[in-house]
Amino acid sequence: MTRAFRGPEGQESTPYLLTPGPLTTTPAVKEAMLRDWGSWDADLRKVVAGIREQLLDIADAANGFECVLLQGSGSYGVEAALGNFAPKDKKTLMLTNGAYGERAIKALAYMNRDFISYETDELEAPSADEVSALLKANPDIGAVFMVQCETTSGIVNPIEDIAAVAQKAGCVVILDAMSSFGAMDISMKRMGIDVVISSANKCIEGVPGFTYVIARRDLLEASQGMSHSLALDLYEQWSYMQKSGQFRFTPPTHTLVAFAVALEQHAAEGGAPGRLARYKKTAKTLRDGMRKIGLSPLLGDNETGPIIQTFATPRDKNFDFTTFYEGLKKRGFIIYPGKLTKKPSFRVGNMGALNWEVMEMLVDATQATLKEMNVTDLTPAE
Amino acid sequence: MTRAFRGPEGQESTPYLLTPGPLTTTPAVKEAMLRDWGSWDADLRKVVAGIREQLLDIADAANGFECVLLQGSGSYGVEAALGNFAPKDKKTLMLTNGAYGERAIKALAYMNRDFISYETDELEAPSADEVSALLKANPDIGAVFMVQCETTSGIVNPIEDIAAVAQKAGCVVILDAMSSFGAMDISMKRMGIDVVISSANKCIEGVPGFTYVIARRDLLEASQGMSHSLALDLYEQWSYMQKSGQFRFTPPTHTLVAFAVALEQHAAEGGAPGRLARYKKTAKTLRDGMRKIGLSPLLGDNETGPIIQTFATPRDKNFDFTTFYEGLKKRGFIIYPGKLTKKPSFRVGNMGALNWEVMEMLVDATQATLKEMNVTDLTPAE
Repeated sequence: MTRAFRGPEGQESTPYLLTPGPLTTTPAVKEAMLRDWGSWDADLRKVVAGIREQLLDIADAANGFECVLLQGSGSYGVEAALGNFAPKDKKTLMLTNGAYGERAIKALAYMNRDFISYETDELEAPSADEVSALLKANPDIGAVFMVQCETTSGIVNPIEDIAAVAQKAGCVVILDAMSSFGAMDISMKRMGIDVVISSANKCIEGVPGFTYVIARRDLLEASQGMSHSLALDLYEQWSYMQKSGQFRFTPPTHTLVAFAVALEQHAAEGGAPGRLARYKKTAKTLRDGMRKIGLSPLLGDNETGPIIQTFATPRDKNFDFTTFYEGLKKRGFIIYPGKLTKKPSFRVGNMGALNWEVMEMLVDATQATLKEMNVTDLTPAE
Repeated sequence: MTRAFRGPEGQESTPYLLTPGPLTTTPAVKEAMLRDWGSWDADLRKVVAGIREQLLDIADAANGFECVLLQGSGSYGVEAALGNFAPKDKKTLMLTNGAYGERAIKALAYMNRDFISYETDELEAPSADEVSALLKANPDIGAVFMVQCETTSGIVNPIEDIAAVAQKAGCVVILDAMSSFGAMDISMKRMGIDVVISSANKCIEGVPGFTYVIARRDLLEASQGMSHSLALDLYEQWSYMQKSGQFRFTPPTHTLVAFAVALEQHAAEGGAPGRLARYKKTAKTLRDGMRKIGLSPLLGDNETGPIIQTFATPRDKNFDFTTFYEGLKKRGFIIYPGKLTKKPSFRVGNMGALNWEVMEMLVDATQATLKEMNVTDLTPAE
């Protein structure tokens, strides 16, 4: 039987967002936005300083690193990081196995910087050995870019092994940790990662509006004049913030104060390890439940992260994604379309202010929706 | 006597923001942010479509124009507009009489596009005759960029006269209407303005998080491949939005729904003319009141707009801006430091959810603060 519609705490009549972000956030995060803050005022400067410090702490980057907050979405952060850190006189090795790796390559192409791409299938992780071979064969590579958890499929790439190989070859290691930062293990110091990019509305569970780049201080200092864009110039943003405690341009004040609350809740949950434990349980409940009703995850339990799960679309002729989406929405859940280029799929996000019980409710709602659509053959479509 | 601290409606214990933005917004605008929205969902696409349509309407640009929303602050919009519309094979004439004109020039310099700048003093408007002469002397100028209300001083530039001259010379007219759009008169059709840029947290009275560019459709169509940045590429942002109703990258969902409420309130006040009438009364109350207690506005009543007022810093040796700022803040008002390069000054914004009575309260608070500081000589400092 379908459970009654019961949305998230504080917004019971709206659906859970089971997407790669924006996410369902807690009432306290949103309530922080009920006040207007002056961008020049000391109160906001204190909030900003606290955010920067806590992010460095989560990244295990307390000494020798800097955190730069930047207005815009996560993709702005990726483009900004490439603008400041992809060398002009050397090549960047771009690892890609999905839409976000592709987007980073597209951003780099706008800047006319040289690169070599190493592409693997959307359901296949890159290999550190292959990276090592590429670096040996191309001594003009000066930086390596990779994505930790590619949101296209939810796959987790072996960043630690690749970072080790890249660092050994003297390359700057740039990590897109958009969907993983704040939950999955990222130690910049231990892993030898030089630059990490993420955004407000992912595992820290804030609302969208800004991105952040954590980078080795010496690299940031050396990046003056590198950027192709005034707005996206991380050196300028950082040096102004160091001097004044402020953003160069109007910051998304409400998003910032909401994020400060989200960081408090993150710490209260036990930081990244605590959050990871919850996401793992949520992801397992979802995958097990979906399998039980006959749906197939497209990645194995050891390949996927606890961030987003991709399921094969059933081959039944009665299956239509829009009807499925609307059926789940009216039952209280917003899911996400697939983004794989080769296999029909849909995605369910595990991030956000929700737990495993929500996934049990979703599995029930999925079963009810498929029944309503008269979908019986759940074999994966090709 | 100092009035008791009494902040804005819905946040009585926090100060009024009398700054160039972020502003004091209404409770309804902020309460719209108490829900999380899916970025892919039809509900949000409807909100986005409504915002774009209403902005075109306010700009008197219903036919033949397009509205592009872009994540980031207003300066991102200015840089994006220059990236898409400042010609590569011709020069852009950049008018500047303050920090925001200077910032636009800096953004253009990042892109290595040719320009000629026409600079007037921070307290002096540019002349249409001079622009005409410059265009005659430099037939390789293809676009003219200007700021309607330069936030540095609050001065209003003669955009209609300059647009007429520029249009006659066949130039693309790009207007930075950051602090004026939604209050001051802007008719893109009647005035012959091709591109207008503004942002969420100015006269429409939303919260900060995105910027918007309204442009002639044929110019937008012709701008494919022009941008120096993937994130700031208005052609890509627009064509994706046309196809899908969505942003290319994660939008600031909460800021968008808050802005939709702000637009409703804007319409209920009588649109731009209604808002302008309120701001004019607010600005007059402020200027008259400050004059009455001995402080001097730096621009004449006909030179300044009703957006932001610049006052001369008193020459009294006991005057110190930080003490003054804190004295006003504890009485319920956040003002803004001056940005003039030559004259010591401070600024008071008139935008936001407030009326003339707030300005009377501010004048009283100013008098009390100056008394507390033992400042008696209010003659302008040099």
